[in-house]
Amino acid sequence: MKTGEKKSIGYPLITSRKNPLVRSAALLGSSAAARRESRAFLCEGARLCEDAARSGLAIATCFFTAGAWEKYGPYLTEVLGACGETYQVEEHVAALLSGTRNTQGVFCVCRWPGTLQEDVIGFAPARSCLVLEDLQDPGNLGTILRTAEALGIGLVFLLGDCCDPLSPKALRASMGAVFRAGLIREPSPQRLAELLKRQGYTLHAAVPDNGSRKITEVDFGEGSHAVFIGNEGNGLRPETCGFCHDAVTIPMAGRAESLNAAAAATILLWEMRRGTEKKEG
Amino acid sequence: MKTGEKKSIGYPLITSRKNPLVRSAALLGSSAAARRESRAFLCEGARLCEDAARSGLAIATCFFTAGAWEKYGPYLTEVLGACGETYQVEEHVAALLSGTRNTQGVFCVCRWPGTLQEDVIGFAPARSCLVLEDLQDPGNLGTILRTAEALGIGLVFLLGDCCDPLSPKALRASMGAVFRAGLIREPSPQRLAELLKRQGYTLHAAVPDNGSRKITEVDFGEGSHAVFIGNEGNGLRPETCGFCHDAVTIPMAGRAESLNAAAAATILLWEMRRGTEKKEG
Repeated sequence: MKTGEKKSIGYPLITSRKNPLVRSAALLGSSAAARRESRAFLCEGARLCEDAARSGLAIATCFFTAGAWEKYGPYLTEVLGACGETYQVEEHVAALLSGTRNTQGVFCVCRWPGTLQEDVIGFAPARSCLVLEDLQDPGNLGTILRTAEALGIGLVFLLGDCCDPLSPKALRASMGAVFRAGLIREPSPQRLAELLKRQGYTLHAAVPDNGSRKITEVDFGEGSHAVFIGNEGNGLRPETCGFCHDAVTIPMAGRAESLNAAAAATILLWEMRRGTEKKEG
Repeated sequence: MKTGEKKSIGYPLITSRKNPLVRSAALLGSSAAARRESRAFLCEGARLCEDAARSGLAIATCFFTAGAWEKYGPYLTEVLGACGETYQVEEHVAALLSGTRNTQGVFCVCRWPGTLQEDVIGFAPARSCLVLEDLQDPGNLGTILRTAEALGIGLVFLLGDCCDPLSPKALRASMGAVFRAGLIREPSPQRLAELLKRQGYTLHAAVPDNGSRKITEVDFGEGSHAVFIGNEGNGLRPETCGFCHDAVTIPMAGRAESLNAAAAATILLWEMRRGTEKKEG
């Protein structure tokens, strides 16, 4: 580590990709196991890092390039005020940290969000919630969390073998919703179903079957509801469907396979929101 | 060109990336101008090529690798029955044609779909339609066309400076909906608005403004409606909004910027479908 000579921004300059801080930050970007073990994750992008700071996340380290300092100064101000250690990095070091082709050159190592729980113990019931089972694509997961936030669904369960909401792709697609949503991981469908039922929730299994109850027939304005959405290719596990009170479907006009996972989730979330809003006025 | 010796599949084998057929096919994959000039496009993937054949598109040429022949035989049968010329290609030639990292090794050069019109002359009015203005992301465009098909909205206008629905990314995201939807390009908002009004359509400008009329207040079961959706970052042009009868919005709970373009389009399409379905029973 040495201070840059050409442009002295006032923070220590990292010039090597072998720097231990950079290596461990890069590992947080690429490995879900490393994230879980260190209880930390890597956040990339000026807007997303600012979002992390504004959402009150503890930021351990910030890295940025000289170019980012010039371009994203206003975003960085907020981040630097909230973080522990700050380093300038050279472009090739930023390229190692980045998951995108054209990096903005702004990175934060953030502590595990308090909003992401590893089990259902002590969860706070919300009016309605979404349950995602075995979702595999981080882009889908992020998009669904972003939509859920926009539509006021503040509690999402990640059931079974879901992908990691703190992976760079999921974070990017979520536009920071991961930092604010109540997210709870739970491996067991049975345990989650029993818990939700005890709390008075009605459980709906979303299925692509035109013979099932239409989602438009559910009165989301009345009581608490949990909508279960399954894996992109295989849908919900039969076992999980069995724990639900009913199976609901989106009535379609065209080909049955024509809605992708994120589009189907958007419609289901919207129907939940629609019912609540109707009730509220 | 020579026939392969190890695995003789019975079609001429192309071993060079410089083969003129391969070069012109690759150009169709990378250039919208080339597509427009040749009135043809490149389609990649076993499923999508089969879809093109099933949708009745004229297929000029098919290229596939030996690996694809083994893996995707059933898909290829339908394609080969519908296409003019067929070639086996080596893996490195397939890599040149491909827009993805792990190509399936199946490609078709298809003639321009009859469903994609370059202007509004002689368009057939449908009950309700979608208008996309200046949409820039081919993934968004494809996803929206896929959702529109699933929800029975069969007519979509590409207004102003929209990206190309025949680009490899848009085709992939559309899951073949491009082959079946009625798609009409039109550069002029004024001309399109006047035409739709003459046909008795009510024109709605979708805007992210909580003060506007809620989309849930529009009765899509009554009359013909056109919903206008704008560019991902900038929304509709003010001029275009001015041509519409009203401005409609998706009532949100969270942050205003939280719905991405495809999610917003999904909700609007769903509301159009919802109204129609209610009417139909």
